[in-house]
Amino acid sequence: MRHIISIRDLDRAGVDRLLDAAAEIEAKRYDPGLLRGRILGLLFFEPSTRTRMSFESAMARLGGVSLTMDSVEASSVAKGETLADTIRVVSGYVDAIVLRHPREGAARLASEFASVPVINAGDGAGQHPSQTLLDLYTIRKSMPIDGVRIGLLGDLRYGRTTHSLAIALSLYGAEIAAVSPKGLELPSGIIRELADRGTSVTEYSAVEDVIADLDVLYVTRIQRERFPDTASYLDVASSYRITPELVELARPEMIVLHPLPRVGEIDPRVDALPNAKYFEQAHHGVSVRMAMLGEVMT
Amino acid sequence: MRHIISIRDLDRAGVDRLLDAAAEIEAKRYDPGLLRGRILGLLFFEPSTRTRMSFESAMARLGGVSLTMDSVEASSVAKGETLADTIRVVSGYVDAIVLRHPREGAARLASEFASVPVINAGDGAGQHPSQTLLDLYTIRKSMPIDGVRIGLLGDLRYGRTTHSLAIALSLYGAEIAAVSPKGLELPSGIIRELADRGTSVTEYSAVEDVIADLDVLYVTRIQRERFPDTASYLDVASSYRITPELVELARPEMIVLHPLPRVGEIDPRVDALPNAKYFEQAHHGVSVRMAMLGEVMT
Amino acid sequence: MRHIISIRDLDRAGVDRLLDAAAEIEAKRYDPGLLRGRILGLLFFEPSTRTRMSFESAMARLGGVSLTMDSVEASSVAKGETLADTIRVVSGYVDAIVLRHPREGAARLASEFASVPVINAGDGAGQHPSQTLLDLYTIRKSMPIDGVRIGLLGDLRYGRTTHSLAIALSLYGAEIAAVSPKGLELPSGIIRELADRGTSVTEYSAVEDVIADLDVLYVTRIQRERFPDTASYLDVASSYRITPELVELARPEMIVLHPLPRVGEIDPRVDALPNAKYFEQAHHGVSVRMAMLGEVMT
Repeated sequence: MRHIISIRDLDRAGVDRLLDAAAEIEAKRYDPGLLRGRILGLLFFEPSTRTRMSFESAMARLGGVSLTMDSVEASSVAKGETLADTIRVVSGYVDAIVLRHPREGAARLASEFASVPVINAGDGAGQHPSQTLLDLYTIRKSMPIDGVRIGLLGDLRYGRTTHSLAIALSLYGAEIAAVSPKGLELPSGIIRELADRGTSVTEYSAVEDVIADLDVLYVTRIQRERFPDTASYLDVASSYRITPELVELARPEMIVLHPLPRVGEIDPRVDALPNAKYFEQAHHGVSVRMAMLGEVMT
Repeated sequence: MRHIISIRDLDRAGVDRLLDAAAEIEAKRYDPGLLRGRILGLLFFEPSTRTRMSFESAMARLGGVSLTMDSVEASSVAKGETLADTIRVVSGYVDAIVLRHPREGAARLASEFASVPVINAGDGAGQHPSQTLLDLYTIRKSMPIDGVRIGLLGDLRYGRTTHSLAIALSLYGAEIAAVSPKGLELPSGIIRELADRGTSVTEYSAVEDVIADLDVLYVTRIQRERFPDTASYLDVASSYRITPELVELARPEMIVLHPLPRVGEIDPRVDALPNAKYFEQAHHGVSVRMAMLGEVMT
Repeated sequence: MRHIISIRDLDRAGVDRLLDAAAEIEAKRYDPGLLRGRILGLLFFEPSTRTRMSFESAMARLGGVSLTMDSVEASSVAKGETLADTIRVVSGYVDAIVLRHPREGAARLASEFASVPVINAGDGAGQHPSQTLLDLYTIRKSMPIDGVRIGLLGDLRYGRTTHSLAIALSLYGAEIAAVSPKGLELPSGIIRELADRGTSVTEYSAVEDVIADLDVLYVTRIQRERFPDTASYLDVASSYRITPELVELARPEMIVLHPLPRVGEIDPRVDALPNAKYFEQAHHGVSVRMAMLGEVMT
């Protein structure tokens, strides 16, 4: 049985196959009855409305049905019951499981007890491979991924999304610029892992210093709770805010991505620029997740 | 692209077309696969179980699939994200959006950012056109709407439902009796708007004074929190309670409507009278919403 | 119209017909489009994730659609509205209702106001017939139900599940051993009812005293809140814990059942024994519920 737990489990051929499948789907070349009669169980032990709706939409577009356990219910299920038991029971109700869980490693554990395929939709500080795949897919829509020069911006210490993306990009010989405030730098473990995979990271503290060299600017949130007080947060947040003036400094073809939701990191005036690809990026989640469901359920 | 945001956007031909379509649907003359393969997104920023289930039922009866974001999730989504962003993202997941939101004007705003049709399912003190259409539909099942004499009863100041219905009825030359406790009268703005549309309103404080002249008695809730103390609330509530004895004073063909839920405004003994149409009214919500979904999605 | 409210409403032929239908379904001999175009309303006034997902899965496998009102929504619906009104309204949206409610008798009441079939999915201390049917079905997969010797273990005073199962087993001439801590014995009313149905109950306080004679050991939870302090709870709980060493004392064919979730009543080492049937038992919920939906909706 095939699970999709971590982007680390996929080699380049595996990633390309999923991205190719997503491209076929986006071009409407797919069987809308592919998963007719099949049932997907979405177990969300923490809320993630976008991810959930995007998987449900993907399942519906392939003719299948979704059953959802949301985080409110999960908190009552969890009351004393092990994740292993929950997974074993739900395995009898559905044909595949999409799991979102606050604890790192939960998806791997689930895959060991499930009698159906498991897709990790985010487990704590761990992995969220469908996000990474849709990030890659969005880049590939604009340019070849090979050798892409990407700037990762924001909280790179706690940001699971940027870690997974960087690991995946190492399959494509990407050049990575890491731009983060002091204290929120990319963890040394990730930098070492990237080095082992042949990818070097250059660190910056100001996006202005590197933006002219980038093909992709990947923006993420900087969370207030990482800072001792509001003043120091606002100080940092404002210097990491993407504006049309900043985008002016970039090459015209540079694209701006963001995993969303955004809360001020990107000036709404940027939305109208051709560089802004973050809404398309979110929309690609459906095609990419259709490809993933097709991969594990057929 | 067609949205349904306010009953004010519809002219009489538009309303009649939707009511005619609902009648065809109720007579089982419709294609149960009309929306096969289509996806409806229900974004409920406040709970409204009846409206939600009724739209989901309508979508299912047309062969389509519904994805729902409930108010618990919405509160986490809303955390900092603008409605505009939420709408833009969800537009990529679904083929139409039904929006319920506590803020007046939210549905209009959503329609400006959506790349799919938006149906307003209630936005604060604003509009709730599907409720108004099912009210009209229920009247039309019993009598011609033209020139109908209707009594609107209860809290007419804050009651969005009665405002929308009155506006819609002005398309049909209705005569409106407004019966409300002191302080909860129909707002003067609505009365002026109705006058501009050629409809005059007569105000009453006691339903006994007008019930013998009515074709339709439209009952709504009077909420406790509008009153300074329980005694004054109970005093008013009891004098606006519909009983079989009160219905005796009316013409035998008069029908009693209520948007539901009721909590004491209508004596359960009224349920058995032929005048009681409020449960049928609720049931008509499905046919009317099927007509609305067909209108915007095909 | 046919409702399924209590196992007491079913005679042996009725139970056998449902179990036979479930067996056909498990063998994949059923029409996956049987309920195409039909809508099931799941009204859950208290959470029960397993029961809900299992019914939704059953409905989906028969080609139908489920609409769900969860307990969070229900608490706002319930605000002042009677259950009778809720049921009358929802009857217009769906083709059958599955009701979960904290109040005993709620399902019977609902069936009196519904214009569609009602299935009781648990009402307080009352009935939960689908659980009983899947229990019976699981027994029948391993042995004839007739004359089965079953040990009911745990809190037999408050345990609705064991009461219903015992009543149902009385249709099959079962021999019942009731094993419970002091103060949590089977109520005398149930013992009398079983006697009236020709079934005698033998009571034990230690499972070791009877396990060698059993065909089925049915384990249930003992809830902490029934005990004055943690020490007395732990004392009792440990002496009702099922371990591989305990199972050694039984006949090799004895099966162990549990309605799940478990929280310590069964040592996970038991999971690997051929006697452990509790996960299969949970999975049979889908086939059994498909049979029930077929029974009431066709």
